[in-house]
Amino acid sequence: MSAIAYSSRRFTFSAAHRYWVDTWSADQNERFFGRLTVPHGHNYVLEVTVRGPIDPETGMVINLTELKAVVHDAVVRRFDHADLGADPLFRGRVATTENIAMAVWDLLVPKLGRERLWQVRVWEDETLYVDYRGGTPA
Amino acid sequence: MSAIAYSSRRFTFSAAHRYWVDTWSADQNERFFGRLTVPHGHNYVLEVTVRGPIDPETGMVINLTELKAVVHDAVVRRFDHADLGADPLFRGRVATTENIAMAVWDLLVPKLGRERLWQVRVWEDETLYVDYRGGTPA
Amino acid sequence: MSAIAYSSRRFTFSAAHRYWVDTWSADQNERFFGRLTVPHGHNYVLEVTVRGPIDPETGMVINLTELKAVVHDAVVRRFDHADLGADPLFRGRVATTENIAMAVWDLLVPKLGRERLWQVRVWEDETLYVDYRGGTPA
Amino acid sequence: MSAIAYSSRRFTFSAAHRYWVDTWSADQNERFFGRLTVPHGHNYVLEVTVRGPIDPETGMVINLTELKAVVHDAVVRRFDHADLGADPLFRGRVATTENIAMAVWDLLVPKLGRERLWQVRVWEDETLYVDYRGGTPA
Amino acid sequence: MSAIAYSSRRFTFSAAHRYWVDTWSADQNERFFGRLTVPHGHNYVLEVTVRGPIDPETGMVINLTELKAVVHDAVVRRFDHADLGADPLFRGRVATTENIAMAVWDLLVPKLGRERLWQVRVWEDETLYVDYRGGTPA
Amino acid sequence: MSAIAYSSRRFTFSAAHRYWVDTWSADQNERFFGRLTVPHGHNYVLEVTVRGPIDPETGMVINLTELKAVVHDAVVRRFDHADLGADPLFRGRVATTENIAMAVWDLLVPKLGRERLWQVRVWEDETLYVDYRGGTPA
Repeated sequence: MSAIAYSSRRFTFSAAHRYWVDTWSADQNERFFGRLTVPHGHNYVLEVTVRGPIDPETGMVINLTELKAVVHDAVVRRFDHADLGADPLFRGRVATTENIAMAVWDLLVPKLGRERLWQVRVWEDETLYVDYRGGTPA
Repeated sequence: MSAIAYSSRRFTFSAAHRYWVDTWSADQNERFFGRLTVPHGHNYVLEVTVRGPIDPETGMVINLTELKAVVHDAVVRRFDHADLGADPLFRGRVATTENIAMAVWDLLVPKLGRERLWQVRVWEDETLYVDYRGGTPA
Repeated sequence: MSAIAYSSRRFTFSAAHRYWVDTWSADQNERFFGRLTVPHGHNYVLEVTVRGPIDPETGMVINLTELKAVVHDAVVRRFDHADLGADPLFRGRVATTENIAMAVWDLLVPKLGRERLWQVRVWEDETLYVDYRGGTPA
Repeated sequence: MSAIAYSSRRFTFSAAHRYWVDTWSADQNERFFGRLTVPHGHNYVLEVTVRGPIDPETGMVINLTELKAVVHDAVVRRFDHADLGADPLFRGRVATTENIAMAVWDLLVPKLGRERLWQVRVWEDETLYVDYRGGTPA
Repeated sequence: MSAIAYSSRRFTFSAAHRYWVDTWSADQNERFFGRLTVPHGHNYVLEVTVRGPIDPETGMVINLTELKAVVHDAVVRRFDHADLGADPLFRGRVATTENIAMAVWDLLVPKLGRERLWQVRVWEDETLYVDYRGGTPA
Repeated sequence: MSAIAYSSRRFTFSAAHRYWVDTWSADQNERFFGRLTVPHGHNYVLEVTVRGPIDPETGMVINLTELKAVVHDAVVRRFDHADLGADPLFRGRVATTENIAMAVWDLLVPKLGRERLWQVRVWEDETLYVDYRGGTPA
């Protein structure tokens, strides 16, 4: 039986967003979200964690070149230098850090498999991050 | 059913402390704690993690402006630019990173609720941090 | 004669921008700037350096509370959670890191004085920063 | 009953390594590992987490001076300014981040005890880290 | 003729301080310094820069082991885990970041020589740093 | 007349090196360099600074895509995942941080021009960096 480890890799993407609930009035949005309603942006940091046995031959949980390619193609290429509000994934869903983490999860599950994908962490800046593990209680 | 996520926010406070057990002799303190018995200080970093369902309307686990205000009022205002040894919370309790984490937890539980408060992490500096989740085994 | 020192303070602001020269065609912009033409954003870090004698009584080059208030009022309040492209300062000027540094300089000179303001450094992210000292050769 | 906390301490070591499976041909190694087959190196960061009750007298989960000495003697002195490929621990095992984490775990368990040692995290650089908890599912 | 380079090394020390001008009334101190009058502390970061020709044989501006020992003996051992207000160097001088930088400079000049010591940078935390080069205009 | 600014971009490369003067005996090397004689490695960080007028049309000192490509081709491709001791640039020259900075400078001057290249900074790790400006006194 192989030993289980958790391998995490960091990615970055710079994107614009704003906080705005379409079904609320402008007034309601401004009262609730304040300055966050103005389009602004962040250097997001994404940490993708895969979990699995360490391959006794290669010493890896996952080939990191493969992981890098998968996340780059499915997420970074889409969200880097992008206006998140213009992405269909955030139609009717505020592009909060929580919803971004959930969107990244949903983009990666079909590529990496529910078995291997352990956690997605999204940092909006150095003071705020969200962890998402598929929404089931830990 | 809503998806569960963990939202964490970082705060900083600069405080003085020293390691000193009141019921020990000076000699005993110095043998055990060494140079830590001298008053010194740190730029502490505090990470507060709340856990809960992502609100489908606002896309948030907790309103971050609210979280910021709660932690600022209950913790940062009290511990920033303070001498921890002079705080009644550390009367008879060494202001170790462990005890600071526990004190922060105890200050936040009544404000955030045991249901939402998931973890408190306190960094003394870039080489040392303590996690506290209410003392119950994970 | 008092000793001369350089005091620097860091600020952050999250803003949206895009690279676009109004007098160029869309085609020309895309050939030159590529993906940078899409609205996106950053967590900018601003370092403001003032230079002067250390006051022998207070031990300060500048009262940091004053410096903090000045930069906050003149710069952070304007650029944080803002779309730089919508700011008159960037009408007809691409909001590059270079131009942002120059704009910050121009906003601060009247408040801090040409004598005290030594340098403005703007980080777009952890891989890119620009220093501006008023445009005169060092 | 004492409260349970998790105390983590960071260490660094600079080491050389390369990715190479001895039982593969040069060709096979290069196809699979690419440029990683060339000897290169990293500033590794190691985070050791111990778990246990907070001692009501000292306010500590573990005496940090003791923890520092143990990890320094068992791991840092061995891996800092070293060529990992020359260490018997990596004979027939590629010195991947996963295998380094496992090797650190195996070096520390006899010193700290399976009860106290909670997790070993190894960062190869700022974009990649591996967590190891003894190989048993969480 | 050898090439000139600037070599910088970082050190850290954790110390307590407060802002207080002895010749002012308590009232005056509180009006001017506010919360900074309360004893608190920081994880200071010190960067010492030496300037000189690169030795063609060893490839070094200064032997870094020597530099490390000099700064450790003259500065770190004195200021780490210390209450700066109790150090004779800050008798009648507020332990501001500016004055700490000047004190470090004065401690190092006799050890490293005015020719080699180029700059001392002291960070109080991640948002504030002071550069000192001996007080003469650049 | 255009305003002058300094634009800096960071790169990283992971490389192996050791400290060893070929013309010294093993004994002499070990006495002088100690543990640094053993092959080990680092995650180097390289900061390249170009100086020049801000182009009034594009708002740039240099096209950053061009700068990125130049440094990548001339330096990163050569030094990343490499054993510096095997590079002809370090034949008869110890691969110290000082000599690496000088080598990077010499590789970049023909590509960027002596007019534009202002400074090369090389970090060996978070505690040590060297600045090189072509060896002429500042």
